[in-house]
Amino acid sequence: MATIRVHLEGDGAAAADRSYDVVCGRGVVAEVGPAVAAGGTRRAVVVADESIARTHARRVQESLGALGIDAPLLTVPSGETSKSAAAAERLWNEFAGMAVDRRTHVVAVGGGVVGDLAGFVASTFARGLPVWHVPTTLVAQVDSAIGGKTGINLSGGKNLVGTFWQPRGVFADIDTLDTLPGREFISGLAEVVKYGMIVDSAFFSWLEAHAGPLAGRDPTAVGTAVERSAATKAEVVSRDEFETSGQRAALNYGHTFAHAYETLAGYGTLLHGEAVAIGMARAARLASLCGRIPPDVVERQDALLHALGLPTAAPQAVRDVDALLAVMARDKKSVGGRLRFVLPSRIGQVDLVDDVPEQLVRQVLATAEAPPKE
Amino acid sequence: MATIRVHLEGDGAAAADRSYDVVCGRGVVAEVGPAVAAGGTRRAVVVADESIARTHARRVQESLGALGIDAPLLTVPSGETSKSAAAAERLWNEFAGMAVDRRTHVVAVGGGVVGDLAGFVASTFARGLPVWHVPTTLVAQVDSAIGGKTGINLSGGKNLVGTFWQPRGVFADIDTLDTLPGREFISGLAEVVKYGMIVDSAFFSWLEAHAGPLAGRDPTAVGTAVERSAATKAEVVSRDEFETSGQRAALNYGHTFAHAYETLAGYGTLLHGEAVAIGMARAARLASLCGRIPPDVVERQDALLHALGLPTAAPQAVRDVDALLAVMARDKKSVGGRLRFVLPSRIGQVDLVDDVPEQLVRQVLATAEAPPKE
Repeated sequence: MATIRVHLEGDGAAAADRSYDVVCGRGVVAEVGPAVAAGGTRRAVVVADESIARTHARRVQESLGALGIDAPLLTVPSGETSKSAAAAERLWNEFAGMAVDRRTHVVAVGGGVVGDLAGFVASTFARGLPVWHVPTTLVAQVDSAIGGKTGINLSGGKNLVGTFWQPRGVFADIDTLDTLPGREFISGLAEVVKYGMIVDSAFFSWLEAHAGPLAGRDPTAVGTAVERSAATKAEVVSRDEFETSGQRAALNYGHTFAHAYETLAGYGTLLHGEAVAIGMARAARLASLCGRIPPDVVERQDALLHALGLPTAAPQAVRDVDALLAVMARDKKSVGGRLRFVLPSRIGQVDLVDDVPEQLVRQVLATAEAPPKE
Repeated sequence: MATIRVHLEGDGAAAADRSYDVVCGRGVVAEVGPAVAAGGTRRAVVVADESIARTHARRVQESLGALGIDAPLLTVPSGETSKSAAAAERLWNEFAGMAVDRRTHVVAVGGGVVGDLAGFVASTFARGLPVWHVPTTLVAQVDSAIGGKTGINLSGGKNLVGTFWQPRGVFADIDTLDTLPGREFISGLAEVVKYGMIVDSAFFSWLEAHAGPLAGRDPTAVGTAVERSAATKAEVVSRDEFETSGQRAALNYGHTFAHAYETLAGYGTLLHGEAVAIGMARAARLASLCGRIPPDVVERQDALLHALGLPTAAPQAVRDVDALLAVMARDKKSVGGRLRFVLPSRIGQVDLVDDVPEQLVRQVLATAEAPPKE
């Protein structure tokens, strides 16, 4: 069990220190009850993905119940389509019907969809309820559950609506990954590769050396990858909570492309991590075209992504360059309509690059490469 | 023209000082453009009540346009029913369609409904856009536009969904009140009386002495009332931004009752200020029954409310005691299901009182007094 601290400054509220812990390891679901109880409440609402309602969510309820915390369960249908205004409104009404008040804590159990949705609902119900995250997918454990970003999608774009709302704590239980379908697990490895690319070249090398065990879901390798990724995410968030200094922007490496692919494919068709992998491959090519990195960086990243079973080229159905560019221009990271990208300058470092020539972006979007080598 | 400062601490973001000004006076709508331009943007969205779209909202657009700020207009139907999840979703989608990004400022022009709705939408679009308030009703100028509370209603209760999202500035133009219907203007005076009751006994006496000119909308008297009320609101918010120390709770004097009346009457039937006047009358009676104030405080408050043309008893249609109590138990200010009320201890001071006996609450709800004397 490893405990990683997310350091945050006070916000002028009575509670000056909003720092919190990310607890990683096997069986840490059992720690949820004691932590929430120490937070001083006797009432919680568990919001969980319906697919794990009877398994991981029930164990969270048991952990809370053992400490006398009443914790009814609300379920959310699996899949990105649950990150909608309609789903948020349904939860708001369910909270109202249960007489949820400001001392009720929300415990989100599931993947990024449930975490983002439940976090958004918690941040906006009664002007803000305390929230705890129990991520049960790899992508949520290494990325979305840490850092306080919440969000829902609009038809015009992913995560266009949301808040910054930090959790009281995060419990990343490696054991919960056992129930994760193979494709979803592999998809989560894209965000793991991202940490190597953006700040941690030693971790990138470790990933190259352990791609086999990771893709094979070896618990020791997975535990190390989760812990190291969570630590990097926590460090970046601690330095730039509200994405104002530019440091947090590094986490969006590959994501401007990825959001465009996801929007065009229709949410849920392409898994988020798959879109991120394709997006990082595009971003590396763009950096290479801009003369920021030599071709071998593109190749090493491609090779690692392929070794982990991840794609680097978009499916034929989402290669409409004009449509992709139109979505990118609407991306909330765009400023004044200009195209901005997070691009690598080497393995382990990225920069936010403004005013990238549209022609080069078109070129990397249009490239129809051979599918990953076997 | 008077400028009142709302002092706020930093929130850990790059901009450490989130303090802002409330500018009160005649013709201050013309100051909006220069202020927003000084904020460094070239793009804004004006969200306005449809009833003032061609008048006050147009002047705001002109003020922005004169400084080269493109400021398209989005309108919201008049009335409390616009404080809905559906209305928020419509604005989110309109923002997305206009490619609103993080450098776009939102300017809310209208009463409390538009301010609360536009503030909520601004706080949640792209995880937060800068917002400016141009309140054009009395209740918005003295209360809702100051302090950063945003909100929408659910069928289960008023303002159950919302955020704390401070504006960059507030422009309370007394001239805009000229278009306000008589009943709405009078309704706004309830919040003005509230400031006298909760912290400012000298102001309460001033109101007693100027009830005639105020009810008659004398510009000098109205200007003084707005300025003094805004200053009190700003001071309370500066001391307790997130309603954590209990000081801000004083502003809810009369409001637990008021929200229950509004919920039962159906939003829009009873004006907010009317509900607050009835709520303050109930709260004073409750304080008297609890032995916290002598009967003459109840009488002085009743007399002032009547002199201003405000009611002190609920309409027959909303006197279902069980239904009112059920709504109060769901109120977001309730904690663990107990009934909490802000009750006066004298004119100019209130306290947050926990565990008020339900029987006494029933008694003040059930009282069917004679209607206000002519």
